[in-house]
Amino acid sequence: MSAIRLRLGVIGIEHLHLFEMVDGLLNVGAETVCHAAGDGPLTAMYEGWRPESERRPVDAVLADPSLDLVVLAGVPSERAGMALAALAAGRHVLSAKPAVTTLDDLDALDIVGAGPARWWVFFSERLCNRAVNEAIRLVHAGAIGEVVAVTGAAPHTLAADSRPEWFFDPSRSGGILTDLITHQADQMTALVGHFTPAVMSATVENVATPHHPEFQDLGRVSLRTEIDGRVILSDHHVDWLSPAGLGTWGDVRLVITGTTGTIEVRSNIDVAGESGAEHLILVDADSARRVDCSGVVIDWAERLRTDIELGTDTFVSHVHTVDACRAAIRAQRAAEAFRDR
Amino acid sequence: MSAIRLRLGVIGIEHLHLFEMVDGLLNVGAETVCHAAGDGPLTAMYEGWRPESERRPVDAVLADPSLDLVVLAGVPSERAGMALAALAAGRHVLSAKPAVTTLDDLDALDIVGAGPARWWVFFSERLCNRAVNEAIRLVHAGAIGEVVAVTGAAPHTLAADSRPEWFFDPSRSGGILTDLITHQADQMTALVGHFTPAVMSATVENVATPHHPEFQDLGRVSLRTEIDGRVILSDHHVDWLSPAGLGTWGDVRLVITGTTGTIEVRSNIDVAGESGAEHLILVDADSARRVDCSGVVIDWAERLRTDIELGTDTFVSHVHTVDACRAAIRAQRAAEAFRDR
Repeated sequence: MSAIRLRLGVIGIEHLHLFEMVDGLLNVGAETVCHAAGDGPLTAMYEGWRPESERRPVDAVLADPSLDLVVLAGVPSERAGMALAALAAGRHVLSAKPAVTTLDDLDALDIVGAGPARWWVFFSERLCNRAVNEAIRLVHAGAIGEVVAVTGAAPHTLAADSRPEWFFDPSRSGGILTDLITHQADQMTALVGHFTPAVMSATVENVATPHHPEFQDLGRVSLRTEIDGRVILSDHHVDWLSPAGLGTWGDVRLVITGTTGTIEVRSNIDVAGESGAEHLILVDADSARRVDCSGVVIDWAERLRTDIELGTDTFVSHVHTVDACRAAIRAQRAAEAFRDR
Repeated sequence: MSAIRLRLGVIGIEHLHLFEMVDGLLNVGAETVCHAAGDGPLTAMYEGWRPESERRPVDAVLADPSLDLVVLAGVPSERAGMALAALAAGRHVLSAKPAVTTLDDLDALDIVGAGPARWWVFFSERLCNRAVNEAIRLVHAGAIGEVVAVTGAAPHTLAADSRPEWFFDPSRSGGILTDLITHQADQMTALVGHFTPAVMSATVENVATPHHPEFQDLGRVSLRTEIDGRVILSDHHVDWLSPAGLGTWGDVRLVITGTTGTIEVRSNIDVAGESGAEHLILVDADSARRVDCSGVVIDWAERLRTDIELGTDTFVSHVHTVDACRAAIRAQRAAEAFRDR
């Protein structure tokens, strides 16, 4: 089978995730055909990196029927509107997260994003992490029995000076839960299937960023999921407080408690432990051991290309995408309602 | 200063924590004077270990004015009543946790347990753990700025065959949150001072123990504490699901997020990592490093003896004890209310 060369149009060059998405697609033979300029300094960086990409007005990108995929990484609050416009123009869309910041927009994307033009979200903390993928595979293989509880933590580095203005404005960024819990909601969806949790509690706070009083630098949510009468409790912590001494952007963890064992993923770093990233520790009835994940194949770009070429559904399903985005936005809304009550 | 030899009376020999408490006190010169027999097999074990201790009816233990301290480890639901009787008889009390399982009993103990006869609780997961002590000291020394979030996890080994009947009956054990969250509530109190959190959500479940349908083998609670206008979010997980392959009774963790750094305690084991127990990992602006806690002195028994001898308050304050017990019981009540609604 000779795979197609995906022709990419890029809109919204406001976040570094854009480069991660395009790079992955270039690795499976994509071409960067055209792009619309963003407001921030990343456009120049992109144009330096992809000089062959033609700068065009947004409408001219959307209207190009030769494009196989439009890649979005604009200001979060504008991504859904842009995705809807692209889908209406018949373009497939791959969006950075948070791909949508309101439930209204999500409802619209839910309806139109299933096809024929399709809407995908790039859940990088799973799609690009071997240990997270292996954890999900092990759970589905029954390595720890039934999942009963999950604890996720995703501290992030603020690097305030490098952030654009919209980053500090929850009405444009979507807020910390909409933005960062999305990854954990995606992982939960991958673990449990159809993911429609009840929000038991949710909080957003500004604890250490006084110069941006509206900014949310800490967020937590407790979710309760029932699947066929079984309960899965999950607690999710996110923050913009990673200490500089950590040596990477965040000590991201995923702890899964099953009825017969536990899995802990240390996604980026095993702090003061083993070197490298993508650590997985499995404990079951027999032993406690590290599982080598270096052989796990990161093939999201190949799967996405296949889905575009063949109309298959191997990358991330539409229901999965909607579930994950909805859980994150509902957590954000619950936290805001609690704060404002 | 020649310290007194504490004369101990023991009532309720229903849990191994009794042996831990007595052993610690023996190490600072206590004498085991007398005991009242319990219902289970541990009484014979105790009598084999302390043959000099005289078996007496409960009333005869309580009525002995020569005793400096009555040590309690009966069935949890009976501990508060026994403590109140001992205090009424003028005896100081050291109780295993959960020392009290209802808010009514706690109110009574709050009133009478401050003195002259005093009521103490043995919070072993802090008092006997060098890394937990060092974490609290580092936080108070400002090593991670202001505490903004805490995540605690205390999985325990069920070992169902070794458990007495009352263990599986929440009306007698107090329920999983009353029982096990007590330790984390104690640690929170040590971290923040006066600890009167709001319970944001709480859950108790039976996920893997079908032969004891009333038993709670999984519990979680999310708490929100405000101290001088600052918010501290804390999530606490407990379970009776530790896999046999772990090699110890539970992979107990305490993760503290501060405004300028983080501390992680691995209390009992660094799974598939460094050997031994009492691990502390500190990340701040400068670096990520392990902190050697081997030099921390475990002196709870000495402090308790001093308090009994001199009337000082160096072991655990009454307000601290009441705060920790109240937070745990309120979590349990909230979980039951949620379940039964």
